[in-house]
Amino acid sequence: MEEHDVGDRSGAAMTTAFDGAPLEVDTRPAVLDQFTVDETGQAGRRPSGVVYPTGVDEVAALVRWARATRTPLIPRGAGTSLEGHLLAQREELIVDLSQANSILDISPADFTATVQPGLTRTQLNAATAESGLQFTVDPGADASIGGMAATNASGTTTVRYGGMRANVLALQAVLPDGSVVRLGRAVRKSSSGYDLKDLLIGSAGTLGIITELTVRLHPIPEWLRSLRVSFPTVSAAVDAAVEMLGAALPVSRLELVDTPSMVAINAFRGTDYAESPALFIDVESSSEPAAAAEEREIRRIVQANNAVEIAVAHTHTERHALWEDRHNLYFAVKSRHPGSRFLVTDTAVPYSQLAATVETTTRLGAELGLAVSVAGHIGDGNVHTMVPYTELNHAAVQQFSDSLVRHALAVGGTATGEHGIGLTKKKYLRDEHGDAVDVMIAIKRAMDPMNLFNPGKVLDT
Amino acid sequence: MEEHDVGDRSGAAMTTAFDGAPLEVDTRPAVLDQFTVDETGQAGRRPSGVVYPTGVDEVAALVRWARATRTPLIPRGAGTSLEGHLLAQREELIVDLSQANSILDISPADFTATVQPGLTRTQLNAATAESGLQFTVDPGADASIGGMAATNASGTTTVRYGGMRANVLALQAVLPDGSVVRLGRAVRKSSSGYDLKDLLIGSAGTLGIITELTVRLHPIPEWLRSLRVSFPTVSAAVDAAVEMLGAALPVSRLELVDTPSMVAINAFRGTDYAESPALFIDVESSSEPAAAAEEREIRRIVQANNAVEIAVAHTHTERHALWEDRHNLYFAVKSRHPGSRFLVTDTAVPYSQLAATVETTTRLGAELGLAVSVAGHIGDGNVHTMVPYTELNHAAVQQFSDSLVRHALAVGGTATGEHGIGLTKKKYLRDEHGDAVDVMIAIKRAMDPMNLFNPGKVLDT
Repeated sequence: MEEHDVGDRSGAAMTTAFDGAPLEVDTRPAVLDQFTVDETGQAGRRPSGVVYPTGVDEVAALVRWARATRTPLIPRGAGTSLEGHLLAQREELIVDLSQANSILDISPADFTATVQPGLTRTQLNAATAESGLQFTVDPGADASIGGMAATNASGTTTVRYGGMRANVLALQAVLPDGSVVRLGRAVRKSSSGYDLKDLLIGSAGTLGIITELTVRLHPIPEWLRSLRVSFPTVSAAVDAAVEMLGAALPVSRLELVDTPSMVAINAFRGTDYAESPALFIDVESSSEPAAAAEEREIRRIVQANNAVEIAVAHTHTERHALWEDRHNLYFAVKSRHPGSRFLVTDTAVPYSQLAATVETTTRLGAELGLAVSVAGHIGDGNVHTMVPYTELNHAAVQQFSDSLVRHALAVGGTATGEHGIGLTKKKYLRDEHGDAVDVMIAIKRAMDPMNLFNPGKVLDT
Repeated sequence: MEEHDVGDRSGAAMTTAFDGAPLEVDTRPAVLDQFTVDETGQAGRRPSGVVYPTGVDEVAALVRWARATRTPLIPRGAGTSLEGHLLAQREELIVDLSQANSILDISPADFTATVQPGLTRTQLNAATAESGLQFTVDPGADASIGGMAATNASGTTTVRYGGMRANVLALQAVLPDGSVVRLGRAVRKSSSGYDLKDLLIGSAGTLGIITELTVRLHPIPEWLRSLRVSFPTVSAAVDAAVEMLGAALPVSRLELVDTPSMVAINAFRGTDYAESPALFIDVESSSEPAAAAEEREIRRIVQANNAVEIAVAHTHTERHALWEDRHNLYFAVKSRHPGSRFLVTDTAVPYSQLAATVETTTRLGAELGLAVSVAGHIGDGNVHTMVPYTELNHAAVQQFSDSLVRHALAVGGTATGEHGIGLTKKKYLRDEHGDAVDVMIAIKRAMDPMNLFNPGKVLDT
């Protein structure tokens, strides 16, 4: 530790004054070691310490102190990043916001909630349920709302409700210059000034540390149908999915699960579903007659696309069981590859490129001898694959991932639909955005000239 | 004209070479005079000339030339701005993009279209209709797609389909440094890099000149109901509207029209509708049984809120007639105030503040002796009022408008839901955004250090 010192390096947790705010700093090596590896097994350096602010005043004091001592900071929520956003590159101080997790306001009349960044989405949903409202963004992991905003997360319900940009109305953030600002307004629309709210969303803590969010809530639907439909080919499943979107059906989840994934589900859950590409579908209707009509319309569409197996869940219990299969997919695949780590890819492509993209994925996996499982948010054109790897075939998995990103970019897609650029996908930023990267760098330099906010993530300055 | 000279000041249209691109420049005073007054009657200075580029190469050449000669530019689409975006403040050159109006691609399989900025929304919809698809953003005026992006326009369908940020997937733009960049990707979601696409949307040409847009298309609904429902009070109408939103009904338009507006409609259209606050509603269903069920649910909700008159349109002809009343509201109100100019206000507030906001509006109008008509996109919390004025009561109308903005900001709303800050609402920017305005200024300075792109609009640098 050269210029900055956040406590006794060897010792236990201790309290340090950060520009007037007394905060406990944990510098115990055993604690810090836990921050050197992320969810995906990627490794970074040991950070200089971890601090747990509980509110905006403490974060602002920390930032003032960081400026004075030139200490780089890594803001952190629930730690579920898949792209290395949270890994230290230098001797950063981890700003763990998991204890800044209060609900500040729930306003059913406005369909909004205002929360601190460390609150997780399931904590928020537990609190809003009694008002008949829900926070809809669902990335799978029980991520923090602040972390989800930082990575512009989305997930299974995005096809109907949008991702974080659509569901965060306003933010409070501490900027690298130490100022506390409010971005956006807690209304449904505004054309006032530049859209700084959406600039911070997805910036992965490189432009500001989010200290408060006002999010949209949506009514919890009363009339739901869930379906699992198997098709002879991926292409038939994709055609049916796009046809449903074209029919303006109120689909709220539209997930593609490929054959290897269905095999894994059967083995893990003891089921005997058709082992061919399937769609998992939720439809949210406004009344029971509407739900019945919409179910008939979906049956007509999937049958016209040669569906081989159709399961419809009507009750809450049935629907829960149907989606448990999909939600457990990661564990189902994992259990078939004990001792392996997993790489999860995350490209998104135009609808017209979906079937070909899944075929390319499967072919590339076979060529490289990899056990690839595909699970896509097909309604968003977002294709995930899970690939187990060990030290023996790590290079092949990297090559697979690289080929998929290059394919997505070549067909007009994006390197990341919802996980973010983080550390691992920086190399694709210029391929995707060209000279626009220079504008991103200019903005980062203007807002964080000392490069103290999550340095080296998203882009290099 | 001091430093820059775009042609013979006195003469007719002539061709000038802009950094290699020969373009006709119109400097005829009679032509330029047409650009000194906007839709709302606000006056600016006479611009130095008007030029009509047809594509990105010409725009890029113009920008290079503008940098070399330090000539400020005002990009312009269909000229329907209501907030002075297009009024010259110095001797700007008007970059009229109305001839850059080609459709470059329609991809029904991707639900997208790629267009030049000067294309209007009705031109686009005429071209996509045969594919069963529509561009949904409808601000009323037949604005250009590029102009709508520049002001982050929205309108009657925003409650279901969102505004321009939700419907523009990708942009091509020429930046003040002369570079041609692509922002965003033509996919449903991306977490790659900073969100520059949404930064340019709503920046009113101050950060870049949009030269191409890829927009989302949505299926043209087959099963529609339109309703006009009258209520005893504004507050009953608002309650019914919020209840419909809470019931997850597939409402695609949800408009409030107040008593004076209904009186104007009756007089203009020769109708005898109840002269009390009304909702105009569109519901888009996925099948006829769903439509019937949704109509019943809406009837139940409005009756529970003491509806006094319910008209339902089932056929295309009936629906067209019902919406003609709403679409003609501006002309209906105008015809009652011959010789007057009109001010149109545009605040948006949280739902819980809607009824009180409309009441405040009506009370303020009465206190100031103004003939105020309210027509709100109630599903977005966006309240417009139309106020006729002459030279005699212009000051009172300004005071009315100012009071409404200050009311909206005080209750957590925004100075502009969809028209933009332009020139007229700059004075409210810091009240709404506080120190975040300094970040906006820093971004403007970083991207346009010579302040050549629509200078003095949105903010002062």
